[in-house]
Amino acid sequence: MFRNAKNVGYYMIGQGSLSQLGDLLAVRHKAVAGPAVFFLDSFFEGKDLADKLPVESRDMVLYVDTTSEPTTDSVDGYTDQVKAFLKGAEPCALIALGGGCVLDTCKCVGNLLNNPGKAEDYQGWELVKNPAPYKIAVPTLSGTGSETSRTGIICNEEKNIKLGMNSDFTMFDQVLMDPDLTASVPRNQYFYTGIDTYMHCFESITGSYRNVVVDSLAEKAIDLCKQIFLSQDMMSEENREKMMIASYLGGMAAGFVGVVHPISAGLSMVLHMRHGIANCYSLSVQEDIYPEQYKEFMTMMERQGIDLPKGICQGLTDAQYDALYGASIVHEKPLSNRLGPDFKNILTKENVIERFKRM
Amino acid sequence: MFRNAKNVGYYMIGQGSLSQLGDLLAVRHKAVAGPAVFFLDSFFEGKDLADKLPVESRDMVLYVDTTSEPTTDSVDGYTDQVKAFLKGAEPCALIALGGGCVLDTCKCVGNLLNNPGKAEDYQGWELVKNPAPYKIAVPTLSGTGSETSRTGIICNEEKNIKLGMNSDFTMFDQVLMDPDLTASVPRNQYFYTGIDTYMHCFESITGSYRNVVVDSLAEKAIDLCKQIFLSQDMMSEENREKMMIASYLGGMAAGFVGVVHPISAGLSMVLHMRHGIANCYSLSVQEDIYPEQYKEFMTMMERQGIDLPKGICQGLTDAQYDALYGASIVHEKPLSNRLGPDFKNILTKENVIERFKRM
Repeated sequence: MFRNAKNVGYYMIGQGSLSQLGDLLAVRHKAVAGPAVFFLDSFFEGKDLADKLPVESRDMVLYVDTTSEPTTDSVDGYTDQVKAFLKGAEPCALIALGGGCVLDTCKCVGNLLNNPGKAEDYQGWELVKNPAPYKIAVPTLSGTGSETSRTGIICNEEKNIKLGMNSDFTMFDQVLMDPDLTASVPRNQYFYTGIDTYMHCFESITGSYRNVVVDSLAEKAIDLCKQIFLSQDMMSEENREKMMIASYLGGMAAGFVGVVHPISAGLSMVLHMRHGIANCYSLSVQEDIYPEQYKEFMTMMERQGIDLPKGICQGLTDAQYDALYGASIVHEKPLSNRLGPDFKNILTKENVIERFKRM
Repeated sequence: MFRNAKNVGYYMIGQGSLSQLGDLLAVRHKAVAGPAVFFLDSFFEGKDLADKLPVESRDMVLYVDTTSEPTTDSVDGYTDQVKAFLKGAEPCALIALGGGCVLDTCKCVGNLLNNPGKAEDYQGWELVKNPAPYKIAVPTLSGTGSETSRTGIICNEEKNIKLGMNSDFTMFDQVLMDPDLTASVPRNQYFYTGIDTYMHCFESITGSYRNVVVDSLAEKAIDLCKQIFLSQDMMSEENREKMMIASYLGGMAAGFVGVVHPISAGLSMVLHMRHGIANCYSLSVQEDIYPEQYKEFMTMMERQGIDLPKGICQGLTDAQYDALYGASIVHEKPLSNRLGPDFKNILTKENVIERFKRM
């Protein structure tokens, strides 16, 4: 049984292309009369960006708190707010401007607008039954690949699991990539997020579950990441544009990840750590599992002058270490993708906790 | 003004995936009650393939003559046949099984089913006004990229020009790639068609009109072509699958071509030569314009044991040489893409005719 893979509908790329968002919305307005809903990273509250957007008086602007990863609770909360605003009207578009948190929040809220129940009901594969409203992604931070992937990842605190709504309906209909938008991102954050593409792509191509189209896209995305992060300035104009493409291709290539993402998910669940930096900590203790990529990653960090302060898991309680282990080891498919069905022989509880302690 | 680029909707790839065509059609049947129309390369007439297809009694099977390139006349003729069969019903899908000729014929007929007039009325850019019926591409020959590109290229004999219907509506909605389908292609034909990807991709990235996403896809497609054609056997199982991906990515990367395609168009117009082999003859006399690629191409031909018999333009009339020149030089945008606005200083009439004589 072969998978029928969906592509994101349309993409536009170029420095200054944000100015064409209004044109894209004008086309949507002709198709659907309802208002637009803008999801903005709370970082932009009171900043210039909001003024530059084609927001009309009847539209909604929703600021998404990005201090921690989206949760089933936060997604349910935003869904309630959007529903209260729309009062049953069909929105002409949902527009997400931000990094992975904002994009994933928009994707999940979109599903919940047209499907009954709560966010946690749709964590898994092919659980969404009805198409979401039309959605536009405008990344202001590149690397997660959320703009082209078919998942919206959320933390379920009660179940101690980080899991996505995997569905074709989760995907964006349009991606708009304007490299000007990433010019002012702090360097550390740019690195932590950008390197996510490198990580999920090398995890995919070094795994045992493969798909040849995905391999090709992942190889190209890795190639671009190497050009960017091994250059003198990962944030040059050219490299910021390349990073947008790498993220776009990497999101399309989002196949199965390996050991980096499960350990990273543990950090996000228990320490509420952001995905990008959590990935970096995760790879930083996997010199035995990904020796080549570990070395390359360390060179990239050094070349770009990025810190990863040690000691983040010092002094935790035994219960917290148990939770870190639990929220990592639950991801059996990615772990076996790299390590085979007997992955628990390598990743024993002691082994995993020892890795967290070294971070 | 940035272009909003459309992607092909869905793709499926894998050895044996043709067996899932019926499932894809079953989904379509639920959406639209009308019959399906299968466009098959006339090569398959009386062969096994037709029996393996999920053709129902109410469906139409149309054999497309592929002895020469599609023309405005041939497309108009097939359109009349399909219209007569459908009697106004909306088809649930048009399915093309073949190489570029069949895929392009299906794309153009699709546009003409829902837009008034003749094929020649839509040769150009953004001339198609109404969406075409749902279309599925099943390549049985890889390389043209027609499965993912937004053009359907046809020869207009009266105007002596080879020009496509460039429109988002021309694109397929679904691509199904089964490498088993290319196992029995004659080696020469496999090479001539496959190398088309290499050619339009290097023409694109060596040109002056660029787009960074297109560049990335083209680079990856070229990389795959090198792996395939510099290997010992371009038709190994693995390489046939790679060739399908290269063609798929190359079609998405279809940006602006350079000097190979215009000279090739001349051969197709005047000598009714097929596109793939015409490209090969074209590059074979451009050692000065593309020195690096010329050398690599010659190595590929040798490695794969491909012939390109000399003397194809010997003994033509002056009128024919004039026509060859005219049908080549008319493509100003691609020619200037490689050679700059003064391309006619290099490609004088004498220079171009001398190249044809050397073929």
